[in-house]
Amino acid sequence: METAKLEQAVATLLPHHDKDEAIKILRASAAAPPRADENLLLEQLFPRLEQDAARELEMIREELRREIRAIVLNPGASGERLQKLRKEMAAENVDGFIVPLNDEFHGEAAPAAAERLKWLTGFTGSAGVAAVLKDAAAIFVDGRYTLQVKNEVDVALFTPRHVSDEPMSAWLAENMSAGETLAVDPWLHTENNMSSLKKVTADMGVQLKSVSQNLIDRAWEDRPPTPLALVQPQKERFAGESSSSKRNRIAAKLAEKKIDAIIHTLPDVIAWLLNIRGADLPCTPFALGFAITHQDATVDLFMEEKKFTPSMREHLGNMVRLHSPTEFEQALQALQGKKVQIDPTVTSQHIVDQLTKAKALITRAEDICLLPKATKNAVEVEGTRRAHIRDGAAVAKFLHWLSVNGPAGKVDELSAEARLRAFRESGENFRDLSFNTISGAGPNGAIVHYRANEASNRLLEPGSLYLVDSGAQYLDGTTDITRTIAIGEPSAEMRHRFTLVLKGHIALATALFPKGTTGSQLDTLARAPLWSAGLDYDHGTGHGVGSYLSVHEGPQRISKAPSTVALVPGMIISNEPGYYKTGSYGIRIENLVTVREVPPPEGAERVTYGFETLTFAPIDKTLVEKSLLTDSEIAWLNSYHYEVREKLEPLIEGDVAEWLRLATAPL
Amino acid sequence: METAKLEQAVATLLPHHDKDEAIKILRASAAAPPRADENLLLEQLFPRLEQDAARELEMIREELRREIRAIVLNPGASGERLQKLRKEMAAENVDGFIVPLNDEFHGEAAPAAAERLKWLTGFTGSAGVAAVLKDAAAIFVDGRYTLQVKNEVDVALFTPRHVSDEPMSAWLAENMSAGETLAVDPWLHTENNMSSLKKVTADMGVQLKSVSQNLIDRAWEDRPPTPLALVQPQKERFAGESSSSKRNRIAAKLAEKKIDAIIHTLPDVIAWLLNIRGADLPCTPFALGFAITHQDATVDLFMEEKKFTPSMREHLGNMVRLHSPTEFEQALQALQGKKVQIDPTVTSQHIVDQLTKAKALITRAEDICLLPKATKNAVEVEGTRRAHIRDGAAVAKFLHWLSVNGPAGKVDELSAEARLRAFRESGENFRDLSFNTISGAGPNGAIVHYRANEASNRLLEPGSLYLVDSGAQYLDGTTDITRTIAIGEPSAEMRHRFTLVLKGHIALATALFPKGTTGSQLDTLARAPLWSAGLDYDHGTGHGVGSYLSVHEGPQRISKAPSTVALVPGMIISNEPGYYKTGSYGIRIENLVTVREVPPPEGAERVTYGFETLTFAPIDKTLVEKSLLTDSEIAWLNSYHYEVREKLEPLIEGDVAEWLRLATAPL
Repeated sequence: METAKLEQAVATLLPHHDKDEAIKILRASAAAPPRADENLLLEQLFPRLEQDAARELEMIREELRREIRAIVLNPGASGERLQKLRKEMAAENVDGFIVPLNDEFHGEAAPAAAERLKWLTGFTGSAGVAAVLKDAAAIFVDGRYTLQVKNEVDVALFTPRHVSDEPMSAWLAENMSAGETLAVDPWLHTENNMSSLKKVTADMGVQLKSVSQNLIDRAWEDRPPTPLALVQPQKERFAGESSSSKRNRIAAKLAEKKIDAIIHTLPDVIAWLLNIRGADLPCTPFALGFAITHQDATVDLFMEEKKFTPSMREHLGNMVRLHSPTEFEQALQALQGKKVQIDPTVTSQHIVDQLTKAKALITRAEDICLLPKATKNAVEVEGTRRAHIRDGAAVAKFLHWLSVNGPAGKVDELSAEARLRAFRESGENFRDLSFNTISGAGPNGAIVHYRANEASNRLLEPGSLYLVDSGAQYLDGTTDITRTIAIGEPSAEMRHRFTLVLKGHIALATALFPKGTTGSQLDTLARAPLWSAGLDYDHGTGHGVGSYLSVHEGPQRISKAPSTVALVPGMIISNEPGYYKTGSYGIRIENLVTVREVPPPEGAERVTYGFETLTFAPIDKTLVEKSLLTDSEIAWLNSYHYEVREKLEPLIEGDVAEWLRLATAPL
Repeated sequence: METAKLEQAVATLLPHHDKDEAIKILRASAAAPPRADENLLLEQLFPRLEQDAARELEMIREELRREIRAIVLNPGASGERLQKLRKEMAAENVDGFIVPLNDEFHGEAAPAAAERLKWLTGFTGSAGVAAVLKDAAAIFVDGRYTLQVKNEVDVALFTPRHVSDEPMSAWLAENMSAGETLAVDPWLHTENNMSSLKKVTADMGVQLKSVSQNLIDRAWEDRPPTPLALVQPQKERFAGESSSSKRNRIAAKLAEKKIDAIIHTLPDVIAWLLNIRGADLPCTPFALGFAITHQDATVDLFMEEKKFTPSMREHLGNMVRLHSPTEFEQALQALQGKKVQIDPTVTSQHIVDQLTKAKALITRAEDICLLPKATKNAVEVEGTRRAHIRDGAAVAKFLHWLSVNGPAGKVDELSAEARLRAFRESGENFRDLSFNTISGAGPNGAIVHYRANEASNRLLEPGSLYLVDSGAQYLDGTTDITRTIAIGEPSAEMRHRFTLVLKGHIALATALFPKGTTGSQLDTLARAPLWSAGLDYDHGTGHGVGSYLSVHEGPQRISKAPSTVALVPGMIISNEPGYYKTGSYGIRIENLVTVREVPPPEGAERVTYGFETLTFAPIDKTLVEKSLLTDSEIAWLNSYHYEVREKLEPLIEGDVAEWLRLATAPL
């Protein structure tokens, strides 16, 4: 949008507002992803607007949004952008610069302003890092992205490398000489990450330099603003515990550990602790910022003050002091001489440097909030149960629609994905999807982190499998479900593999285990049927899920990787074994479950836990080879389907209800 | 034995030898445990002796052995010994001293000269540590020994504490004041252990001081000598690989890692690397000493030279330089400026101190030999198979004997144990037991690390269970087997629990898993049937076993504790789930298994491993509740018993053979 045109429109629509300030707000709100209630922000900041004017503002925001997307992702400009970056490197007098994918919150996603790797290289994957030297540059990605990176990135500019087979350290050692200087932005590297870099560069005789402003930011003139979206209260009827109760619990732990203050850098920890939700990122209701909890149970919160309405400030209460993000560094310096806890795996080196400068006594440990956050209270678990029934009804409507339209061979991945989203959007408390839907037909289903686009979009063809992994954010809970559907007649091999995956899913769903057991200890139960056939899958079996928060959360998980985190009642976790035949099809059966104490079996001597399945939607029976199931496995499937019907029937009708009766009839 | 009497006897029997030297040798040989071929040492050092004179020398050795045992274990003298120790503390001007159970090799057992904790306190358990201050002393033991310690140790002198619930650090903090000095013997603490102690004392403001001679050794006038027993070659027909081939493999790894030398402190590593076996400790054929392997594939070995015959020196070859143990420190100092690898979990602080003083560049990592040692070659696995058949025949003879004599109620734990030993001793290649037999009747079977003595000895009573966990050292392999036997009619509960344990045992024995899987990942398979009933057992499911070496060896294991060590073909490991009802009975079913690659199932995509069971002896069918077993579990038991009969029949006859046919008949 031309500046003149934008200025004119704003002057006309908002005659009583400062023009430059209003444009700033519009741009910043456009830098946040769309969300169901996003217009509340405009109402808040531009009150008493006519309806027509409001609609025009919304349209301007949409156009700015498109502009931002076009600015960030423009692989054709990579050459020019790389040149600009190298100019800044020369100005800073450094020989190299590292461009990570993450922002200063070290999460799975970052807002447009922080999509520096995407801006520079055009890479759209979810993990990667680039290293830029004076005459060479490389991008490092994991096995999921080794093909994709070559399609997206100009390999004449950035040599693509496999991050573990051909690590950055080796590439730097080959391409840098002793005495040279490598620059990093200390906000984008955790303390742990920085320690490795220090070791690597020291071995090479290369100097590691922290720059005070990111060199990309200097080179990127039209860099989007940080996102502006309202912070909303997570009401106690969903959160189940007041923020003050949580803060007192955490403060008591600080007192017990004789720690004066703890720095929170994880957005979901801050959201949980203060019972707030934001909209700075797609799919996940984070409000980006930092917080410090003190031993007196007060909290300093560093977030853009415009994001807070007066009533939201009231919700925070007077034990939470709201500050501008620019005041965070001063606050760190004010911790002089205090005993301060940080988590070195998620805390930026810059924060550690400030604390060190302030002579704070740093204690390194996992954030104290992580475990309480993962251990949902009864209200949160009940909310999640309800959200899942609504979500299951949407999935059932979709599966019915697919059963009618799929076999004709006219449904494709993108249209299926859109249809599923539409069914979900009509559900009560729906806010957003909880992650980008994986809608994979045939061979695309074998790509574990597939995301359909116009180029990759495939028809769902008879004789193939369709894998759909999706979920939503509801005010009362977060969902995540995968179903694999036979389009037409499946092959005997597909049925065999599906049934092995189902056996693993059932083994985990029905597992009983003593208090103290970790997810790593249970992982094998889900794999054993596949292992017996010489098969396996190369991803974890289960990840933690938040309560209207991140769909991936720690510290619990079910995976091959050793874990010392015991499962405790209230944790929500996915149960998602799979099987993938590259180039042919993918299978995954995913339900969310919650840990609960079970009534003790007769003669029991140990406190025994098991899982309650939270997800309710039919599992495709045409893919089940009954002869491979034991009697108790068949009983589980029939009883699960009985529950699916009981729970979903009140929310559906007509043909869908009829279809559901058949889809859930006993095997 | 009175000195005058001993001197006179030696003068008479060994007129051509230096009297003092001969007495020294006799005492040192008495400090080694009895072993089948121990007289070779006397023949070697006192050649051309008349048979009668030789026999008299042996009797003297036995008497000296009894004396040593009486010297070491004398709880009545604890008060006096504590007083002497405190005198030495005062002379050294320190306020406290730590007395660990281990010696400088940090293994499971130590020779008499190093049994300082036992000498001081009378405690005979396998793990513990005492802390002695000027006016207080405490002994710290784990949950296995909290009852035993009170029976063995004078609690007026040593306060018994639970090592994890009431840790030594807390006790020291309570009982020491800032400014005081705590002394340790740096030979008896690993670098890791010492790091914790440094932290604990620093927090207390207490000075930690390494003493140059152990204070107990100064206080202990009649301290026994270090053991003297011949070192023997482990022939290539048992070892399957020459020592020079092993040394070249290790040297190649050192070159690859750019390490100049590695310090070996583990006796089993040295035994494996040099294809040697010793007799310095009971049950385990260790020759105690240290070794250094250099990048040029030569080895410096530090062991008492008298332990080596000329032919044994030849076996070592000229790439292995034999030195007196006293030369070890000089050798460490000679590593000045070199890159040296140590394992901080098993290397004494004293060694690290010497290397640091020599300005060696220390690399910390697990001993390179551990994994190759654990990965048995085909010859070792085949030897172990053969040893197990002999061992199984001895167990079958014992179980037959028990079936005849047990129900009469006249067999007790000690007589059963002795009988089993006698059956084993007649087997080819038998050298020793591989550990002290656990012979537990009724409630004693529920004590996981039980060892019967005259006071605890129980009759095997009708209606009870008898648990016997035992094993032997054969030149061609090490065995370890547990069987649980019903004496008379078992209760329904006993049968139920036994069958659950059996289900776990079968699940592990038949597990298939992809290359890369760790023992931790398989542990749950053995527990799941118990977990489903709200039951569990509080020990690991499997430990590594050596090849005519330690019956407990790493790095592989099957346990709840996270492990990153993948199981690889050739590893030998135990499969021993159990169930223990305190005060009533214990159940354990233990076979050794070896990892092997299995023929790929049809359609397999992964290299798949499974276990081959090595142990062959009947499992008591009267304890099996058939209705709880699946068809495939019944098939496994029948097929196992078929193999037991096939393999053992050639080694037994008469009534035993008849009994075996019934004991192994299909369920």
